[in-house]
Amino acid sequence: MAVLLIHGGAGRIAPDRRDAYRSGLAAALGAGFDVLATGGTALDAVCAAVVSMEDDEAAFNAGTGAALTAAGTVECDAAVMDGGGRVGAIACVSNARNPVRLARRVLETSPHVLLVGPGAEALEPEPVDPATLITPASRSAWSRWRARTSKPEGTATCGAVALDDAGRLAAATSTGGVLGQTPGRVGDAPIPGAGTWADGRVAVSCTGRGEAFLRTATARALAFSLERGDAPDLAIGERLAEVRSAGGEGGLIALTADGSIAFGFDTPQLAWGWRRRAGATVEEAWEVDSAAGVTVVGGLARR
Amino acid sequence: MAVLLIHGGAGRIAPDRRDAYRSGLAAALGAGFDVLATGGTALDAVCAAVVSMEDDEAAFNAGTGAALTAAGTVECDAAVMDGGGRVGAIACVSNARNPVRLARRVLETSPHVLLVGPGAEALEPEPVDPATLITPASRSAWSRWRARTSKPEGTATCGAVALDDAGRLAAATSTGGVLGQTPGRVGDAPIPGAGTWADGRVAVSCTGRGEAFLRTATARALAFSLERGDAPDLAIGERLAEVRSAGGEGGLIALTADGSIAFGFDTPQLAWGWRRRAGATVEEAWEVDSAAGVTVVGGLARR
Repeated sequence: MAVLLIHGGAGRIAPDRRDAYRSGLAAALGAGFDVLATGGTALDAVCAAVVSMEDDEAAFNAGTGAALTAAGTVECDAAVMDGGGRVGAIACVSNARNPVRLARRVLETSPHVLLVGPGAEALEPEPVDPATLITPASRSAWSRWRARTSKPEGTATCGAVALDDAGRLAAATSTGGVLGQTPGRVGDAPIPGAGTWADGRVAVSCTGRGEAFLRTATARALAFSLERGDAPDLAIGERLAEVRSAGGEGGLIALTADGSIAFGFDTPQLAWGWRRRAGATVEEAWEVDSAAGVTVVGGLARR
Repeated sequence: MAVLLIHGGAGRIAPDRRDAYRSGLAAALGAGFDVLATGGTALDAVCAAVVSMEDDEAAFNAGTGAALTAAGTVECDAAVMDGGGRVGAIACVSNARNPVRLARRVLETSPHVLLVGPGAEALEPEPVDPATLITPASRSAWSRWRARTSKPEGTATCGAVALDDAGRLAAATSTGGVLGQTPGRVGDAPIPGAGTWADGRVAVSCTGRGEAFLRTATARALAFSLERGDAPDLAIGERLAEVRSAGGEGGLIALTADGSIAFGFDTPQLAWGWRRRAGATVEEAWEVDSAAGVTVVGGLARR
């Protein structure tokens, strides 16, 4: 069995942008699942899916077109983790076209788990000019933000979880953070246990107001809850309620070692997608979903 | 009831340095407990205890005398969290005499939870020259390290958890990180859910090889386990085993809302101390402990 489940962020996704999100989700599902279909690992697959979303400047808040800080600069955060306990994460990085690849590099080459700022940027093998990550749309969103408020805004991130034929799980998350954030701010995306988690039984990626996910260590709590046998819909509902009581909102995706898919959100929209192959049967679905709540696609039944 | 439980780091503490650790533990217990005794909050108390350890350059790896990076520079990390879900954390900060106070400032003044590098340093109200945090002993330890290896070494941190008369819990952790770490490395200490955690039922502070605590999101997992009713000694033993299987070793302290004290470690030594007042009875103990394992001081029974 091979499964890829992705999200392109939770938040308010305007109707006129939803087709761009749908195209981006379909492309990322294709890029990530191709890796699984050709014998790649779950870790390779989540990286490929997230790279696809980072490069998609029309839709997702990560990599090229990422949301800008209060200073009008780009600062990207990303993490990758596999079910074998390997993690690499980076934050406050401005010179990586694909932050998730740099996180993967930390996983593979550093004795450390989390590197930030210039220390992380020093590991980027093909540094880019930070200006190349800023698009006309991200600059214009920043100008509108600055004219309106000084409060950080927005909740979007992208992420992926995967299960490969060998039964390995992995998770990856990447984000530009919140629009207008203080430079140096780190959210939940690059933090194992907050926005990203994988162990031998479950892989999780979160999206939403990062501070609330940090305050509740959402991903680890969800994994613990599922490991204790709690039903996925109840476990996810409990986490989203906890996030809300910590002052935030958002969504998350989770994949278990038996191939069960689950996701939930309490924002106006969540962009999600999944593809699953069991034997000769391939199923897939993706949507910019406006029906907040928790969806579970267990076993081989399609919702 | 008022309780303060502290640690001054897990690792190898040489016999000729243990008296300095014992003095430092006694001073930090006094500083933190005085706050509780005069009606201060648990958050105030953990900050006072950690400030005392940060300022003690003879013993603890935090603040003045913190371990140096591979580049011979100081980079401090710290977090504070209270049981009401408020958190402030900073990392890669070189200009704060008391990193835990800067973390407290993030908690109080920032819309964000975690700030790193110059973005965090900009909030320091009384910036110091980073050179003032480097002591002859920390410089000499770095020189000996550089002559011997290029691998990061060491596991020490300091931290505190407290329960105040109003029943509030809080936790704080502060560290210079591992000796010879890559500049920009962030460990578990400033990460809610990894090295620091507090909620309405339990407060936790960890010490040890930060990467392994990050990989296992130790503090959140321990809190979840205790909330599910697992016995503290088994829950802590399980977390330390998990940390070990993630390639690390260390220790942790935990305090529950009923005033039960628990701590455990699997390093050669753990420096710990606690003071508890219930009614007119005050008990206290501190030690540089070489008997690895888990200790639980439940209810009012003294071990």
